[in-house]
Amino acid sequence: MDFSKLWLDYRKLADTRRRVIISCDHSLKDSAAFEELQIAMASMVPDAIVVWRSEVFDDDSYLIVLTIHPELAEEEYDIAASANITEICAGSETGLLYGVFAFLRQTALAGKFYSFTAHSKPSQPIRMLNHWDEADGDIERGYSGKSFFFINEELEINERTVMYARLMASIGINGVVINNVNVRRKAKLLLSIEFAESLANLGELFARYGIKLFICPDFAAPKTLCGLDTADPLDENVIEWWNTTCALVFGKIKNLGGFLVKADSEGEPGPMAYGRTHADGANMLARAIKPYGGIVIWRCFVYNCTQDWRDKKTDRACASYDNFIGLDGQFDDNVYLQAKNGPVDFQIREPVHPLFGAMKNTNMIIEFQLAQEYTGQQKHVCWLIPMIKEIMEHHTCHDLPDDRVNRIVCGVAAVANTGDSYCWTGSELAAANLYGYGRLLFDENLTCDELAEEWTRLTFGDDEKVTAAVKEILLGSKQAYEDYTVPLGIGWMCHPNDHYGPSPWGYEFDRWGTYNRADRDAVGVDRSASGSGYSEQYAPALAEVYGDISKCPDELLLFFHRVPYTQRLHSGKTVIQHIYDTHFEGYAKAEHFAELWQGLKGRIDDRTFKNGCERFAEQLRCAKEWRDIINCFFHRLSGIDDENGREIY
Amino acid sequence: MDFSKLWLDYRKLADTRRRVIISCDHSLKDSAAFEELQIAMASMVPDAIVVWRSEVFDDDSYLIVLTIHPELAEEEYDIAASANITEICAGSETGLLYGVFAFLRQTALAGKFYSFTAHSKPSQPIRMLNHWDEADGDIERGYSGKSFFFINEELEINERTVMYARLMASIGINGVVINNVNVRRKAKLLLSIEFAESLANLGELFARYGIKLFICPDFAAPKTLCGLDTADPLDENVIEWWNTTCALVFGKIKNLGGFLVKADSEGEPGPMAYGRTHADGANMLARAIKPYGGIVIWRCFVYNCTQDWRDKKTDRACASYDNFIGLDGQFDDNVYLQAKNGPVDFQIREPVHPLFGAMKNTNMIIEFQLAQEYTGQQKHVCWLIPMIKEIMEHHTCHDLPDDRVNRIVCGVAAVANTGDSYCWTGSELAAANLYGYGRLLFDENLTCDELAEEWTRLTFGDDEKVTAAVKEILLGSKQAYEDYTVPLGIGWMCHPNDHYGPSPWGYEFDRWGTYNRADRDAVGVDRSASGSGYSEQYAPALAEVYGDISKCPDELLLFFHRVPYTQRLHSGKTVIQHIYDTHFEGYAKAEHFAELWQGLKGRIDDRTFKNGCERFAEQLRCAKEWRDIINCFFHRLSGIDDENGREIY
Repeated sequence: MDFSKLWLDYRKLADTRRRVIISCDHSLKDSAAFEELQIAMASMVPDAIVVWRSEVFDDDSYLIVLTIHPELAEEEYDIAASANITEICAGSETGLLYGVFAFLRQTALAGKFYSFTAHSKPSQPIRMLNHWDEADGDIERGYSGKSFFFINEELEINERTVMYARLMASIGINGVVINNVNVRRKAKLLLSIEFAESLANLGELFARYGIKLFICPDFAAPKTLCGLDTADPLDENVIEWWNTTCALVFGKIKNLGGFLVKADSEGEPGPMAYGRTHADGANMLARAIKPYGGIVIWRCFVYNCTQDWRDKKTDRACASYDNFIGLDGQFDDNVYLQAKNGPVDFQIREPVHPLFGAMKNTNMIIEFQLAQEYTGQQKHVCWLIPMIKEIMEHHTCHDLPDDRVNRIVCGVAAVANTGDSYCWTGSELAAANLYGYGRLLFDENLTCDELAEEWTRLTFGDDEKVTAAVKEILLGSKQAYEDYTVPLGIGWMCHPNDHYGPSPWGYEFDRWGTYNRADRDAVGVDRSASGSGYSEQYAPALAEVYGDISKCPDELLLFFHRVPYTQRLHSGKTVIQHIYDTHFEGYAKAEHFAELWQGLKGRIDDRTFKNGCERFAEQLRCAKEWRDIINCFFHRLSGIDDENGREIY
Repeated sequence: MDFSKLWLDYRKLADTRRRVIISCDHSLKDSAAFEELQIAMASMVPDAIVVWRSEVFDDDSYLIVLTIHPELAEEEYDIAASANITEICAGSETGLLYGVFAFLRQTALAGKFYSFTAHSKPSQPIRMLNHWDEADGDIERGYSGKSFFFINEELEINERTVMYARLMASIGINGVVINNVNVRRKAKLLLSIEFAESLANLGELFARYGIKLFICPDFAAPKTLCGLDTADPLDENVIEWWNTTCALVFGKIKNLGGFLVKADSEGEPGPMAYGRTHADGANMLARAIKPYGGIVIWRCFVYNCTQDWRDKKTDRACASYDNFIGLDGQFDDNVYLQAKNGPVDFQIREPVHPLFGAMKNTNMIIEFQLAQEYTGQQKHVCWLIPMIKEIMEHHTCHDLPDDRVNRIVCGVAAVANTGDSYCWTGSELAAANLYGYGRLLFDENLTCDELAEEWTRLTFGDDEKVTAAVKEILLGSKQAYEDYTVPLGIGWMCHPNDHYGPSPWGYEFDRWGTYNRADRDAVGVDRSASGSGYSEQYAPALAEVYGDISKCPDELLLFFHRVPYTQRLHSGKTVIQHIYDTHFEGYAKAEHFAELWQGLKGRIDDRTFKNGCERFAEQLRCAKEWRDIINCFFHRLSGIDDENGREIY
């Protein structure tokens, strides 16, 4: 089993002490926190022995004291570190583990034991990863190999699973959904006895690392598993089946946190087939698992995926809000609605989902996608953390004590970007998304610069040239990707199905409700009050901005408005010139990133360097396609030449 | 095993005789001709006994006399039929079989024994089907289910194979390639001992029906099968390996006719990898099989399939001619070059391939595609016989005694449209392509009307309403398909990969060399002397026509020229109005065909009727997409409204 340790590859400190003493209650000796310290110290101070308590404490010793303080919250910790002694207190074993990871991170970054204090508790209470792993080992929209959870149609627990749990705990992830929201084939058996033991074992491992285990059940399970002729959530037999099944499942799988459900969406079963509402469906499940402390996370990604492209009235962007806004207040308190960050589907640029702030009496979770489905599929470097941070800090303008998304949601989820590739995420650089995501949810005050620096140095060490280059790549990568791909928020100019590479009209005459309506005169979709009315789903102050061409931010102009190519942006450029300029610039940025990477030869390990070179080559190839095809597309339509005379094919 | 008998479903004649006497040499008693008569008479005159020779010949008897006449050519036959006696003479058992099938066809169409004479020999000496069956049972571009040759990775011979051989012989097919020209996976073992016995058996069955068996070998077999490090056709070890292997293979498989080879094309191996020519490759194989009377059929479908769409100079249409014209006269006499009917790839409208008539010292075979890859995939009815007939009768204008394609080629091949579906061809109506193809090669003087009538009545019986409706559908179907799909010869407006349904720019920015270059002002590719020069590949008289916008036939205008949307056609319409009109008309034709079919309820068997209804429903759905998407595409680009005010979305 061959996999990297990512940011947990503890490097030797500048320290010559011969003893590290870990002092804690006997009960903590078996904790993950204690174990992690042992692992870390063995690498960081390899000449030292690590002992539990000791009478001897001298100049040759480093002392680490671990204590549980009940007055702290479960996930909260306090660190007081010095060059000789560190004390870590926390509200629970999980908090202690978080504290240990924080201590190790700080120490690793410093390269030595040193004096600092830290006090932290998570900014977000729910910090989840959604894996879209299939029980047969494939990963939907997976760009990092096969599943490491499901191998040969069985749920496996092995050293990689343990490493995974350590990695997730180190960045503060506290909930993991291990299977795809599209519940297919053998995953339909996850509620059955077949998976009970392996799920129980995985749950136990996760519990040790403060992670709740979640699964996506088959909403139609009463039919597919039990043979009932209905899955109607108000049917007595259905309710009884779920009650009985959940009693068995939660009885067996002690650390099961609950369910994530994609219902009535893209062909998945749901309550609407029986004339019931999403609330009926979610509450029925929520009641079945309430006795065991479980929660139901119910996705808001619901729309008509068989739209006729001729239909210019139906607007997919409106669908999620329209489907759920009328249900506000109807969900049980252990139901959480999970809405994607934008109204459509993880495009590089969308407005923030209008349900945030509008659903005033419903638990909301926001969902991001670390798997780079529409953002380069982990071949292109595209560090999403600036986007996530921007969205989390976005003001919804709703009448609330704090109208920001991060104060509105009860939690955050992200589609994972991991697989069984050596470096977990296909590209080593893509791991920065995973790292930054977890860290940002734990501490929302971290800046993008700090997160990029932390990850880069923990991953690649302290070579300043490496740090500078990798940080520059990371920090500029998202904007570069946006520049050379889809202009001004229009979205969906990718190849259908695989969502990779440019195909400006690939979705234009299809059933997915994602159109740019570009013609020889204009481009974009009128979603203002005079168009589909989507802009009216926002709080009045935002609706006014988005709904007005003159106020709408440039980067969302074509999402909200249909405009001629000669329309002036706030930037002063015309739409068409903006398109040309950003596409040339975006490609130039990608070229620059590739050059920066080339400069790291010999400064990072060969394997990583080589993998990066291959991926940058592919990024450049593909970015060139994006640049030239998008420019060609709009040039053919508009007939307007580039002001700067650059070649448009 | 459940399959229809297609046009060999012999129906009862208006005849009450009690005896059918077949008189022939003892040696013919086991022939396929004799057996076919027995099978047919048992159905056509079910109250009669069928006997071999007889002393008794009275009013209650029908006498059929079969004789071999060595002065006739092998495949030539003579029939002298009356109400009481029929004499069928032929140059060989195969000729006799053809005569028997002709007699049975005429008798079936008449519904009784009657007086007629016939003398026939095939218009084309080589009449082949190319099956693109994979050894694992899939069929590339197959729209009729799985392979019936290869089942569970083995070559099977069963009652369906026998029926297949009878069907093919009944339409005069005398050569069958059983595996795909792309030689993949287990098909690479076709030259090995593993398939020797089953190929020998299949060859024996085919021989009984006058059909030579062909296979597509792996050109790289010296590497893949034998472990040599080269497949260089001039390498001594390679030559020796082929010589030895062919001696073994042809020794075992008595009825093996030879090889069909796709080399140096779309990733298939070939001689060019070793700096050798197509002639080097083909001749090497030809010499290895010459002692056994074998022939090598070498495909001319060679082009750069990794073209950069930015490259406006390279023209795929030129590639096949450019690759082969310099090799004219260099091929051995048992090598046949097989060129597709057009220069690109089986589009609904292409000019005739420029190699025909230009390769004056090379055996040429023309290749059609009955599998409706680009012509509706056997969901749309698209009877290709009018197109095949038109191409075969096309004047190449080369300086030849007879400049028509049918006098230039030594044979004809077609990609088969069969599979293991009940009706063999997915759609019952698609079988009319198979039937018409074989019949037309045998007798080029048959009109499309006659072929449609023959097939319809043999398939559906003598209901005049059925005959009229089905004939109308068949005869109009190809033009309707052309009308509602791709205008004026431009081609390639289908979905990439699966080649079904409209995607007007689906290939525009791809690597396949198939571009329409449509922009807001103009559409089409300049292939005249001032463009890619493709038109110059034709004989001067044709080059002048194709190369001149004012002379180029309307239906090929956009293949040869780039013109503004307002360009006037010979028809007097503008290009854009022609596009709108044909798309509305083509769809209306498809609607009319579906209505005609609906009118046949109760007049044809339910299974066929229902299958037809489903396929017509799909044809209408898809034709509507074609109509509206192509019209919308050109409307968005041109900005020109339909003169008749019809809705363009």
